[in-house]
Amino acid sequence: MSDAPDTGALASPSCPAPAEADRVTLAHGAGAGASARLFEERVWPAFANAALGARHDGAVLAAPADGARLAVTTDSFVVRPLFFPGGDIGRLAVHGTLNDLAMCGARPLALTCALVLEEGLPLATLSRVIASIGAAAAAAGVPVVTGDTKVVERGKGDGVYVNTTGVGAVPAGRSLLPARVAPGDALLVSGPLAEHGAAVLSVREDVGFEGAFASDCTWLGPLVETLLEAVPSVHCLRDPTRGGLGAALHEIAAAAGAEIELDEAALPVREPVAAACELLGIDPLFLASEGRFAAWLPEADAERALAVLRAHPDGAGAVRVGRVAAGRARVVVRSRMGTRRLLVLPSGDPLPRIC
Amino acid sequence: MSDAPDTGALASPSCPAPAEADRVTLAHGAGAGASARLFEERVWPAFANAALGARHDGAVLAAPADGARLAVTTDSFVVRPLFFPGGDIGRLAVHGTLNDLAMCGARPLALTCALVLEEGLPLATLSRVIASIGAAAAAAGVPVVTGDTKVVERGKGDGVYVNTTGVGAVPAGRSLLPARVAPGDALLVSGPLAEHGAAVLSVREDVGFEGAFASDCTWLGPLVETLLEAVPSVHCLRDPTRGGLGAALHEIAAAAGAEIELDEAALPVREPVAAACELLGIDPLFLASEGRFAAWLPEADAERALAVLRAHPDGAGAVRVGRVAAGRARVVVRSRMGTRRLLVLPSGDPLPRIC
Repeated sequence: MSDAPDTGALASPSCPAPAEADRVTLAHGAGAGASARLFEERVWPAFANAALGARHDGAVLAAPADGARLAVTTDSFVVRPLFFPGGDIGRLAVHGTLNDLAMCGARPLALTCALVLEEGLPLATLSRVIASIGAAAAAAGVPVVTGDTKVVERGKGDGVYVNTTGVGAVPAGRSLLPARVAPGDALLVSGPLAEHGAAVLSVREDVGFEGAFASDCTWLGPLVETLLEAVPSVHCLRDPTRGGLGAALHEIAAAAGAEIELDEAALPVREPVAAACELLGIDPLFLASEGRFAAWLPEADAERALAVLRAHPDGAGAVRVGRVAAGRARVVVRSRMGTRRLLVLPSGDPLPRIC
Repeated sequence: MSDAPDTGALASPSCPAPAEADRVTLAHGAGAGASARLFEERVWPAFANAALGARHDGAVLAAPADGARLAVTTDSFVVRPLFFPGGDIGRLAVHGTLNDLAMCGARPLALTCALVLEEGLPLATLSRVIASIGAAAAAAGVPVVTGDTKVVERGKGDGVYVNTTGVGAVPAGRSLLPARVAPGDALLVSGPLAEHGAAVLSVREDVGFEGAFASDCTWLGPLVETLLEAVPSVHCLRDPTRGGLGAALHEIAAAAGAEIELDEAALPVREPVAAACELLGIDPLFLASEGRFAAWLPEADAERALAVLRAHPDGAGAVRVGRVAAGRARVVVRSRMGTRRLLVLPSGDPLPRIC
């Protein structure tokens, strides 16, 4: 696999390599002239909004009103390559953080964006990433209100790392928490799993699946709002990103102090993704999605929740995949033959830099 | 200069190098077993608080009340070396972000902390950094409510990069903004300049000034609150971090659309710092402080503000250094001989990774 997806069109053999003048230099991180020009020429046009326009050390916004609480979440993104089928590090950094707000039941108010750039990064690649961040944030109606740019020497980074922090408002009365998951809850997932992880690995490992599938990277806010408005009894939401559904279930089982039973036959994994996982020797249960969530809610409301999810384009593939039972904190898989086995977390088989 | 400050005591010749089992591995970033253990064993004990204890994708907090607005600021820290006289990357990451909140007039509510770790980092170094973050946040009374850890391969990072985002509340009626700076304002600074930058450069360049001075890295919140309570007419605050006072003045002059005149003779730079700058060929005007701020306020209130600052231990060295005049946006230095020259921002002389 060449490095082509990392650097965009400029790295293809038919284009000349960018001149030094068209690359990030250490001066871009020095906080004076070149830093200011980088902001004015490349960041401001993509993110323009009133708070950022104040040119202050931070942004000042109206606080949530009407008894809403504040939600805060942060994630750094180091995905390799920077561009992959269905997305790129910029889109991922916006959706990943906005989705974590949605998992808290929060409506987004603002995003921050902090970049760590490697000296030598083509400025055209940087602009592509920034444009993607700006477009994804604008599509979600969320302003990028403040940010930061640092530059590290060649060989001390990998093109660009992106941190986004999201601030949102949780409407009064909503409380989605791992500790609320309880025996008797049904477990739903909003669509087919593992598509982000498979898409990133497919380009990285060059396994010949290009075009067969793409990352599911999506903003989940509208689907979550639709669900919570219609079915306010939902106990907890969790998006199965890094570590996949398997890691998410372990976390929730531990926080809830209950057993989660998963029906192997019900797990939604599309055929080409399953085939790629088989080839790579990876269990799709531990592969990341970036546009799906798991939901725990009282069994009595499960069918209605499924109908609500399926009526929304982002939840068309929603299915019921398990349940919560009394018992000690663990995750059990009920196989297609009806036998039960413990789901063991992998420890020696990391999937580095999937997000 | 050896790399000793980067890796702490474990790198000293009298100690054996840490075994592979005592270093960060890619599995620590995989989101499953090793990630969870890293959090439980090393992060949770340093940061423990109720919001982080919910083990959710984000933190949910009470929103600011009484008409306060929300302030949000973010910074990534890539300082080299990780440990320097007077501080370390952890303390710097907490104070840097809390100080940006203070510059907005905000009282801090919460911090987030996102780490990008390089494979091979000694776990003991990581624990030292995390302990420093936890101690600095606790001393300021601010909880670290949510976070993230990513691991990149050897040679794609530099030990540890830290992003902190701060959320705070701006009390009703306060408005500190670059655009409020106006002709007739006095310009004060809260203490001697350039001590953070000089301390970091002194260990990096091995210029023989060890012990002569230390970083001024401090949380400015208490001093800022004291000033704003006593002198609410302050128009704007700015901490002269990366790029130093020189870059900060250029930014404010541009945002205010006015001329800032600086009295060269009044600039507070302590003797050993001035000597180190001379040796390194660096103008202290462009060297970072991490525990000082500049304040713009109506001339009529300047003497009272100086007295208030000087009565506080963190502002004992406060002085008046200039004024704002009508005219186009620029920074002018009035020399010791009374002549005036334009302050030009350096472009070809970056000071990489000072924060």
